[in-house]
Amino acid sequence: MKKILLFVLILSASIFAQNPAPTPILYSEKTLEEMRKIQQASLVSDYGYKQTAYLSNNIGPRLTGSPQAERAVQYVADEMRKLGLEVRLQKLTVPHWVRGEERGELVEWSGMAAGSTQRIVLTALGGSIATDEKGLIAEIIVVESYEELNRLSTKNIEGKIVLFNVKFDKTLAELNQAGAAYGQVSQYRGGGASAAARLGAVGVLVRSAGGSQNRLAHTGAMRYANGVKQIPAAAVAYEDAELIADLAKSGKVRMKLVLTPKTLPDTTSYNVIADLKGSEKPDEIVVVSGHLDSWDLGTGALDDAVGVAMAMQTVYILKQLKLQPRRTIRVVAFMNEENGFVGATKYAEEENPGKHFAAIEGDLGASHPLGFIFAGKREALPYLQPIANILRSQGSGLIDVQPNASSDISTLTAKGVPSFGPWFDTRTYFNYHHTEADTFDKVDPKELAENCSLMAVLAYGLANLEQPLPR
Amino acid sequence: MKKILLFVLILSASIFAQNPAPTPILYSEKTLEEMRKIQQASLVSDYGYKQTAYLSNNIGPRLTGSPQAERAVQYVADEMRKLGLEVRLQKLTVPHWVRGEERGELVEWSGMAAGSTQRIVLTALGGSIATDEKGLIAEIIVVESYEELNRLSTKNIEGKIVLFNVKFDKTLAELNQAGAAYGQVSQYRGGGASAAARLGAVGVLVRSAGGSQNRLAHTGAMRYANGVKQIPAAAVAYEDAELIADLAKSGKVRMKLVLTPKTLPDTTSYNVIADLKGSEKPDEIVVVSGHLDSWDLGTGALDDAVGVAMAMQTVYILKQLKLQPRRTIRVVAFMNEENGFVGATKYAEEENPGKHFAAIEGDLGASHPLGFIFAGKREALPYLQPIANILRSQGSGLIDVQPNASSDISTLTAKGVPSFGPWFDTRTYFNYHHTEADTFDKVDPKELAENCSLMAVLAYGLANLEQPLPR
Repeated sequence: MKKILLFVLILSASIFAQNPAPTPILYSEKTLEEMRKIQQASLVSDYGYKQTAYLSNNIGPRLTGSPQAERAVQYVADEMRKLGLEVRLQKLTVPHWVRGEERGELVEWSGMAAGSTQRIVLTALGGSIATDEKGLIAEIIVVESYEELNRLSTKNIEGKIVLFNVKFDKTLAELNQAGAAYGQVSQYRGGGASAAARLGAVGVLVRSAGGSQNRLAHTGAMRYANGVKQIPAAAVAYEDAELIADLAKSGKVRMKLVLTPKTLPDTTSYNVIADLKGSEKPDEIVVVSGHLDSWDLGTGALDDAVGVAMAMQTVYILKQLKLQPRRTIRVVAFMNEENGFVGATKYAEEENPGKHFAAIEGDLGASHPLGFIFAGKREALPYLQPIANILRSQGSGLIDVQPNASSDISTLTAKGVPSFGPWFDTRTYFNYHHTEADTFDKVDPKELAENCSLMAVLAYGLANLEQPLPR
Repeated sequence: MKKILLFVLILSASIFAQNPAPTPILYSEKTLEEMRKIQQASLVSDYGYKQTAYLSNNIGPRLTGSPQAERAVQYVADEMRKLGLEVRLQKLTVPHWVRGEERGELVEWSGMAAGSTQRIVLTALGGSIATDEKGLIAEIIVVESYEELNRLSTKNIEGKIVLFNVKFDKTLAELNQAGAAYGQVSQYRGGGASAAARLGAVGVLVRSAGGSQNRLAHTGAMRYANGVKQIPAAAVAYEDAELIADLAKSGKVRMKLVLTPKTLPDTTSYNVIADLKGSEKPDEIVVVSGHLDSWDLGTGALDDAVGVAMAMQTVYILKQLKLQPRRTIRVVAFMNEENGFVGATKYAEEENPGKHFAAIEGDLGASHPLGFIFAGKREALPYLQPIANILRSQGSGLIDVQPNASSDISTLTAKGVPSFGPWFDTRTYFNYHHTEADTFDKVDPKELAENCSLMAVLAYGLANLEQPLPR
């Protein structure tokens, strides 16, 4: 079998010249040829797109614990069985929070017409307690940071609703650092309620994380700190945050807030695990993954039906091309990424990370991938370059080294598993993420296929790598 | 007083050369100088922006008949009195429709998880009747045109809900022909209910007019044809139209529709009319205008607080500069543009169009004006060119001749009044128009000031024109 030599980054060429060392074989010519075939077949397949449609449209929103989430588990398991994979369900005990009614309206402000109110577009944060059924009426205090909140005293805050009016940095997002922009604001979503409650607030609002300018409220998980009074928490659309902040400049602003979510008893759900067994090293596993659960406002097309679809298409294409990898390629459809992280946590606990050769997940949408993220030892980069070289022909040849590759597999990364994710163009992702507008129409079939190709080529390359990957 | 000569379009220069004719004086040097001063003062004033904020944020949505609409009447009248204008209210008998609860959910489709439903984002069309309180449950039939509907028979339609899934042409909108794109789809909003009811439909849905991809439902007026059964009518967000259309390909789709709007008895409202009297020809009137009422979903910032604000700023700047026009400049804040057109109709009936020298309205947002629309005799173009020349320095020097200049003043245009409107960059206007996202933050202060400048320069120029405008 013809083999190729280690291709090291251009920088290393001069080192080779001076100091010729034994060069380990990385990918056989056959493997490289197969990767190119996988790429071509993936780019023209609509399998992943159809799976995304089914998960988003036919099944719909898939919040953990919902009938739709359970249907999605069964659906993906069935589809993987149809492809001839070994499928099992990993049992999980998951939280079960359900959204209720949610309404906000201003009932007092400067300049109001007698007898009028103004509707505030909002949505409960995941995990929030309810207001009482008639709603909570209180004055709103607007702050722009924890620092500003903490400069205020209990006297300013007691009995009031705190609005964290913290702007999503669209400029940063447009520099393809949407994750950083998101992190800056989502800390208020997560921890704002308890910070405000410590000063006596009776409710908390956060300006929606993300870049939408379309009156969309952005949900997401929040948590209550131990020993702090729990208060209802909601995100208001960015427009509504601006409205309240503007009105608060010229007088008292009071609102009525009605939220009736419920936290039901924990329930049972599953990670779906489907193995395409390796021919030579079946006990070494390359995970391809996404998460099955979604928020309930949209239909979870971008977050994260597409990720699951990429993983499903990876094994579909291998089956179509009748290619068996040397190591096992395992599809994992994680449950409960959004509001508990139970699936990812249990997976790393129970599934022996030491047997995992690598893990890949897609969980930042499905726009054009510039390349892939790698979370692992830099020494592994030369091993990855031949894969990147193949992906370069579809405009996805860059490697971006980051501490984490993707959400669910971060539990594996932490245990030393080399981890990967598509490196997306994320400039618009947070315009839709966790909102009603995360729907199937946002998925571009061509760009999804590019991501499916990236995941399949990467997975097959890793599964057939002739050497262990430095870790 | 130095006068300038008629400046005729470049094309005409050669005609002049061959055939020197007496050249009427159009604008005095003093007028031209004053117009430049008005322009400079307008471009740096935030008066219009603050008025827009007050109308949008402090007063809020201003649907005809609402307390907010009445407060807006009083507010604008008061502000105009503060500037020393002669203010009167023109009494109108207006329709009074109020939105109620509105909910849609799919209750049957292919692939649904047992026990699940899917929420459909929708909003009642203005003028729609209600469903009964428990809601209407029926199968949805999807069509893409009246032609397709009419190829179906009563047997296909009877007892069903018809969805007109007619796409807004975003490409056309991006060619700055948003109005044409809007016209193609809004005909279904206006007439779809009766067309469907003729074949026995029990409800009608239209895909939202406009270009939003953010799960926004687009309201607007609809009308029932005489002698046809009235059925409830709503707009679904474009995403929901696509979802329903996709699901309908693989099986029956049934939905539950709850709409509880009410048509209350007609009520009284007003056009606000405020005159800055002319020094020489006070009986010749140049109208500057916008409409005060708005839809109720957003806060009517773009449609049309900005138009009213442009008119208000026009007279504010003249007062600031202590300039009295030769003809009367009249601010008109029309009522009921959106759902009845009573204000515009009554104005033309009662206010003697023959005395109107010209009319200007802004009612397509407040993005950068490329110039102005002119609806009138082409012979008037040379009279307008000196104004356009001044506006050119702010990038607004083009003249676009169209049959109509703007909505409310079309009643005057029809009676021969030369009519004008800013010629906007409307590429994004219909992403927000008639939705929840028509809010104050969408207004760019600099671009609004450019429109205010355009309206003021145009109004003052017309009011001081030395000749009658051909009509």
